[in-house]
Amino acid sequence: MTMIDETHDPARLSWVDSANGHADFPIQNLPLGVFSTGFPEDKRIGVAIGDKILDLRALAHTDLIDEHWRLALSLEGLNAWFGHGPADATALRKRLSALLSDDQYRAKVEPLLVDAAKVTMHLPCHIGDYTDFYVGIHHATNVGKQFRPDNPLLPNFKYVPIGYHGRASSVRVSGEPVVRPKGQRKPPEADAPDYGPCRRLDYELELGIFIGKGNALGDTIPIGEAADHIAGYCLLNDWSARDLQAWEYQPLGPFLAKNFLTSISPWVVTPDALAPFRTAMAPRPDGDPAPLPYLSDDADQASGGLAVQLAVTLSSKAMREAGTAPHMLSEGEAASAMYWSAAQIVTHHASNGCNLQPGDLIGTGTLSTAERSGLGSLLEISTGGKTPIALPGGETRSFLEDGDELTLWARCVRDGAVTIGFGSCSGVVQTAR
Amino acid sequence: MTMIDETHDPARLSWVDSANGHADFPIQNLPLGVFSTGFPEDKRIGVAIGDKILDLRALAHTDLIDEHWRLALSLEGLNAWFGHGPADATALRKRLSALLSDDQYRAKVEPLLVDAAKVTMHLPCHIGDYTDFYVGIHHATNVGKQFRPDNPLLPNFKYVPIGYHGRASSVRVSGEPVVRPKGQRKPPEADAPDYGPCRRLDYELELGIFIGKGNALGDTIPIGEAADHIAGYCLLNDWSARDLQAWEYQPLGPFLAKNFLTSISPWVVTPDALAPFRTAMAPRPDGDPAPLPYLSDDADQASGGLAVQLAVTLSSKAMREAGTAPHMLSEGEAASAMYWSAAQIVTHHASNGCNLQPGDLIGTGTLSTAERSGLGSLLEISTGGKTPIALPGGETRSFLEDGDELTLWARCVRDGAVTIGFGSCSGVVQTAR
Repeated sequence: MTMIDETHDPARLSWVDSANGHADFPIQNLPLGVFSTGFPEDKRIGVAIGDKILDLRALAHTDLIDEHWRLALSLEGLNAWFGHGPADATALRKRLSALLSDDQYRAKVEPLLVDAAKVTMHLPCHIGDYTDFYVGIHHATNVGKQFRPDNPLLPNFKYVPIGYHGRASSVRVSGEPVVRPKGQRKPPEADAPDYGPCRRLDYELELGIFIGKGNALGDTIPIGEAADHIAGYCLLNDWSARDLQAWEYQPLGPFLAKNFLTSISPWVVTPDALAPFRTAMAPRPDGDPAPLPYLSDDADQASGGLAVQLAVTLSSKAMREAGTAPHMLSEGEAASAMYWSAAQIVTHHASNGCNLQPGDLIGTGTLSTAERSGLGSLLEISTGGKTPIALPGGETRSFLEDGDELTLWARCVRDGAVTIGFGSCSGVVQTAR
Repeated sequence: MTMIDETHDPARLSWVDSANGHADFPIQNLPLGVFSTGFPEDKRIGVAIGDKILDLRALAHTDLIDEHWRLALSLEGLNAWFGHGPADATALRKRLSALLSDDQYRAKVEPLLVDAAKVTMHLPCHIGDYTDFYVGIHHATNVGKQFRPDNPLLPNFKYVPIGYHGRASSVRVSGEPVVRPKGQRKPPEADAPDYGPCRRLDYELELGIFIGKGNALGDTIPIGEAADHIAGYCLLNDWSARDLQAWEYQPLGPFLAKNFLTSISPWVVTPDALAPFRTAMAPRPDGDPAPLPYLSDDADQASGGLAVQLAVTLSSKAMREAGTAPHMLSEGEAASAMYWSAAQIVTHHASNGCNLQPGDLIGTGTLSTAERSGLGSLLEISTGGKTPIALPGGETRSFLEDGDELTLWARCVRDGAVTIGFGSCSGVVQTAR
């Protein structure tokens, strides 16, 4: 498990002035990402520090870094680095924290910084496989109620961390336009479906989990070792076409309703950075079964929760033109939303011998809290379209309209720790082609 | 659409003697694959001809081949070549057919042949995404009957080519051992699930479709152009853990029941090779709706069917030790099994703007015929375990046992055309780890 060490010291400051007090990227965070400054093909690994990015490819060509890390940090994606595993991840964090705080390194390191405002961010790695889980118990309950009011949760939910495979090719970094998908739509009152633009376009607020070390095909990952296979976290928006989904999803699950786009925030926040924000898993309600032994781990139960605050904002085209601030759609947090931990997700995924690979992406599923103010999708907020919300300026929304900009936010706040953030994950809806 | 030309001429013979009369790989086939002879990392593209393989990397370094093809044919997978599209695919076929039939080339080409018996076959390309469809109407009906005897087909089946995403990382080439997966099993009579080795291990007989040219995210593929996006076909075994599947699959579809392994035959049979074996799609039963306009194409309806004969054999460990020939589990064919064509599958997959990429793999779904002799899974053959079959030597089977070797076969036979085959797709079940 990750430990609190000197890199988390609230007194530690960076010689990069903008990092000190930065809401997302103080020296206690040090998330990894991939950026370019000129040609988009010239992708490099970097670490966010305040409003700067330290170019790790450039750093890897100096004598300031362990020579065994050079190759992996010189590549155009983080897959090879993720495969190095947690000991090297922790060692790199300590080294970067020293390089960016100790003035003796400033002369050599400062020339390797670039302005974050001037770069293009890319996917942090090649995503071999993308899997989406469904561990948000309040979300599963809210959605289930719309179909089965008396029995919203299916019998397997409290035994099986439910998941399904998503589309890797259409995962994009924050900022990618959301082209309204077309598809088969069959309202309940219609005799037959037709094909046309989605009428119930939605978002889903999730966290993304990047796999670090992989497992060989046929091998499993014991629950006590699962944390060592996680390279980091990001925000994830599982854009969803609810009308397509309702018609297509039986019996094999969501498909075209989801695979037109998945957006993620560009920075990978490491397990080490999140160490001060670990919390106990939410206690299982009375009467719930204990996890089966292969998913059961006292240490994970005690510290497998993530004290991450989550928010979603919506800004319509009219609001942006009028200079109106974005509307807060929901504010919640991850720990109480997740019935299963990240470790349980990883162990379950590999429990049949399925091979996970460095850079694979796993979504948690929609993270709604128990309160109406903390719902993670418009399907829940508008109760399937029955309770539209009002936006500043008089517009209403049941689902997303063309021109809407939807943004996810995540921040970790705790007494005694320096606040860190994930950055944001955003997209603007475009008219169907 | 692909055309019949001189490469299909039944009179054309190869100077590779073993090709003439070869059941799978006469000169009229020329499937593409990836092989190695020494180090497994030294992967090369080749074409099967009789019991030889022509090394296309070596050929690409000669003046016998179009220089614009050199790079793509020198790589260790077929992705770049698939991206060249159908005109180059047809031109390469014509060139290979000439090189392997005309004696004037023999002196230069013969040194580039290797014995197929001496190579290791690999996946033909990097599979970015793997999607499994469910277009086998008899399979869907048979499986549906086990759950809903009076209403086996769901209402969307005749409108939507049903599909879902599978796992790309666990697709392996024929010969990969099938490690019996573990997972949560909950028999109907049990109060709660437990975790242990799958008790109902099954296979599914499918064809695989490789994507050639891709489409950009947000763009669609019109039905009239879909055939141009198909690079070829293979056999595909969607190994399935039925007990895991029954418990986990609601509400998001199959996951661990499928993603422990998918096996494919190593050779990619091109659309050009299959041109003589195109047939009309099976007529829709009276009363069935017409396909929606975006899936409707008269030319595809007239020739979108594949006259491919399919077979499945099972050989237990005891049978192999006794020298008993494999037992024929089923014999069927693809055309009457498929409610939707390959073109309809491709167009539907991209109909929401989902981007397909060269080398993506799509399974058709289980191809059972209407007859009991043509069923494509043990779930159907043993009626969910209620009607076990007898094997030579006195063993019985409801599902696969450790040591069983299961093999899929496909061959195209038609009056006036030279028979071609896909080769086989095989796996031996290993005891759970």
